[in-house]
Amino acid sequence: MWQKEIPYKIYLEESEMPKAWYNVRADMKRKPAPLLNPQTHVPMTFEELRTVFCDELVRQELDDSTPWIPIPEEISSFYKMYRPSPLVRAYCLEEKLQTPAKIYYKFEGNNTSGSHKLNSAIAQAYYAKKQGLKGVTTETGAGQWGTALSMACAYLGLDCRVYMVKVSYEQKPFRREVMRTYGAFVTPSPSDTTQVGRKILERHPGTSGSLGCAISEAVEAAGSREGYRYVLGSVLNQVMLHQSVIGLESKAAMDKYGIKPDIIIGCAGGGSNLGGLIGPFMGEKLRGEQDYQIIAVEPASCPSLTRGKFAYDYCDTGMVCPLAKMYTLGSGFIPSASHSGGLRYHGMSPILSQLYDDGLMEARTVEQTAVFEAAQQFARVEGTLPAPESSHAIRVAIDEALKCKETGEEKTIFFGLTGTGYFDMMAYGKYNDGKMEDYIPTDAELQAGFDGLPHIE
Amino acid sequence: MWQKEIPYKIYLEESEMPKAWYNVRADMKRKPAPLLNPQTHVPMTFEELRTVFCDELVRQELDDSTPWIPIPEEISSFYKMYRPSPLVRAYCLEEKLQTPAKIYYKFEGNNTSGSHKLNSAIAQAYYAKKQGLKGVTTETGAGQWGTALSMACAYLGLDCRVYMVKVSYEQKPFRREVMRTYGAFVTPSPSDTTQVGRKILERHPGTSGSLGCAISEAVEAAGSREGYRYVLGSVLNQVMLHQSVIGLESKAAMDKYGIKPDIIIGCAGGGSNLGGLIGPFMGEKLRGEQDYQIIAVEPASCPSLTRGKFAYDYCDTGMVCPLAKMYTLGSGFIPSASHSGGLRYHGMSPILSQLYDDGLMEARTVEQTAVFEAAQQFARVEGTLPAPESSHAIRVAIDEALKCKETGEEKTIFFGLTGTGYFDMMAYGKYNDGKMEDYIPTDAELQAGFDGLPHIE
Repeated sequence: MWQKEIPYKIYLEESEMPKAWYNVRADMKRKPAPLLNPQTHVPMTFEELRTVFCDELVRQELDDSTPWIPIPEEISSFYKMYRPSPLVRAYCLEEKLQTPAKIYYKFEGNNTSGSHKLNSAIAQAYYAKKQGLKGVTTETGAGQWGTALSMACAYLGLDCRVYMVKVSYEQKPFRREVMRTYGAFVTPSPSDTTQVGRKILERHPGTSGSLGCAISEAVEAAGSREGYRYVLGSVLNQVMLHQSVIGLESKAAMDKYGIKPDIIIGCAGGGSNLGGLIGPFMGEKLRGEQDYQIIAVEPASCPSLTRGKFAYDYCDTGMVCPLAKMYTLGSGFIPSASHSGGLRYHGMSPILSQLYDDGLMEARTVEQTAVFEAAQQFARVEGTLPAPESSHAIRVAIDEALKCKETGEEKTIFFGLTGTGYFDMMAYGKYNDGKMEDYIPTDAELQAGFDGLPHIE
Repeated sequence: MWQKEIPYKIYLEESEMPKAWYNVRADMKRKPAPLLNPQTHVPMTFEELRTVFCDELVRQELDDSTPWIPIPEEISSFYKMYRPSPLVRAYCLEEKLQTPAKIYYKFEGNNTSGSHKLNSAIAQAYYAKKQGLKGVTTETGAGQWGTALSMACAYLGLDCRVYMVKVSYEQKPFRREVMRTYGAFVTPSPSDTTQVGRKILERHPGTSGSLGCAISEAVEAAGSREGYRYVLGSVLNQVMLHQSVIGLESKAAMDKYGIKPDIIIGCAGGGSNLGGLIGPFMGEKLRGEQDYQIIAVEPASCPSLTRGKFAYDYCDTGMVCPLAKMYTLGSGFIPSASHSGGLRYHGMSPILSQLYDDGLMEARTVEQTAVFEAAQQFARVEGTLPAPESSHAIRVAIDEALKCKETGEEKTIFFGLTGTGYFDMMAYGKYNDGKMEDYIPTDAELQAGFDGLPHIE
């Protein structure tokens, strides 16, 4: 293996940027199970799904055989505003750790939404616009996805309606104002603008909302407005497809310099980042061309892969969305309030769930104090302040690099740095004050979540 | 003039990055006036200044004849973590404005400090470390400079003590926590850790602090601790020197593609960004090799170039720092509380003041509502959410592009986008709510500031 001198940051030329997304399902021998109608338990058809999602996205959702989907010119143009994202050689972290390992990361935070979410937001907004729709609705918790979507919609001149969990709307006004600056209508959820919102407000007048409720409101709002569809930032097959741009760029940059990763590490919530990051590498593995050790990292407080069940479950707590077969903690599972940042979703992308079940990747859990310790160490030597989500991957990357230090192995470690932590300073403050707590759900708590699983053979 | 097809973003290769800073004073026929001792009114000597600043920085401060100062290897390595910053072709803004003008901007916000301040922070921290000092002290208002300095100090293992204006410390906890994450000691000012702080607290028990007071505390803290020096993020000649990396990279990127700007636009507070941005272009102008229209943009609420006096003045409100000859509103001038964001300094870099006085550049004022309007328009089409400071330059760039639309001229407009607005969402929120106000100081208000000027022939 030859290696040119590796710069700190590898940027692709525009001409080297991916021209098509990679659909890993095409290379999977065991395909992810289909989405089911929540009433009939029969696989969802194109006609059923197109009432919720726009047509082209439904096609992408259902297509498990086409390996390459061309990226439309307009999306490519938008990508060029903030992509290619840099592949960074973590020279300073390596030196700090005194490890013989070579560490690389793909940094997706260099755009105003602060994360990789924009890669799918622009695609989903584009297809909605192309279909002649007026707007899209979505939900957002802390606001990363909502921000990305409002940026994409502003660019395309598409109406954007975001249901934001009320407690975040009130306590995290910064992301709310970013969305409003991009022209989005942001509504605290639950609200009196939907039936489901009004019902919840009647029953729980003082509630501060939940993601499950915000999803239900966003879905209802899309259905009740002419020319609107609902969009979602993770879990779905279409999202993994769009996010493959992360892995494709990474692979192209590595190939230019003769770099081959031994270990690939990504944080995993719903799976949007991990699926995109590992996509083309997993493809090589599935086709038997290369082998990689692939590690999904999840919080100990929300361990869907490591402690969940591989079963059909509701995607939302309101149980109105289709059923997906995935590793899940049950749609009623809610991570402890002491859990900081994202990666709070009860389930996992059906694609990643299948790959994990087939033994094609590993999963590990990490506790949040250790995650913030890694985040702080990384920030101080590499400069970039990482998002708590991304820092799960940093934790494991550092652990693996320290193992190399013990064994003397010169492994090449590659991880995804999904975003920046600018809007997570409350959590950092807790850590700085020594007030951060770890939390691991008990078996009994998990069982309660499993008890709510639908009974499907 | 030939032009290759211009990509959205031009990144230099590492090998093309500047290896030396450019010292514009070397090419100035009329040099900036020397700093004066505030007691004796005699030019400050090396020996006097080295009690406040570290030795190498004093040399740089006083050197007005060496055109190129090599960038030390360690600083170059740090630069490689977040530089080169992209030179961006604003294709989307051009299309939105339907202008024949070609618009470029140099984006300095792609690092965790969120601005160009890091370029000088690492240099100042490096020389302090090299001199064997233990740490540095500084003041910060909203926190941009403090954040940059704490990042630089974390990287070098240098102690960093930041006096943060109390009202910002309490009401803007996010930047405070970023600094703490990077290991800085952040003290709300006024504090009981200094004599001057205790005095002020005695006289004004409930005060929420001011930048002037924080400077005084930081200077005292540096003087009273063995192995500490004080550092400053703008105004000084050394800062203009370090920031020249912005202009040098811009020029190298432009030369690669045969781009020659007709108009160069930068926002101006103390002058750190503007001085760096225009440095090498001004050098060509001074040497008679090229001509450029150069525009400094300042807020109408703090108009030091356009309505100030060119005179010796105190650099701080505490009147303990050396006197500088500059365009100034008087050290007692404080911009209205309705003024958002930075660019609040009463004076202007002595270098820029001299260049302006010599007619080598223009200055314009803009009002903040118009600035935020430009910021929002820019964010929606170009993606990046700009800092309010940077948006002053955006406002004038858009105005100039619209003029080209009227006249049909295909001018090349180049401006500095100094940073991101993530930590300015309170101001954006005000704008989003339609509650932003403009403010222009009256002649009488300005006269009150001028009355406080020291009497120096």
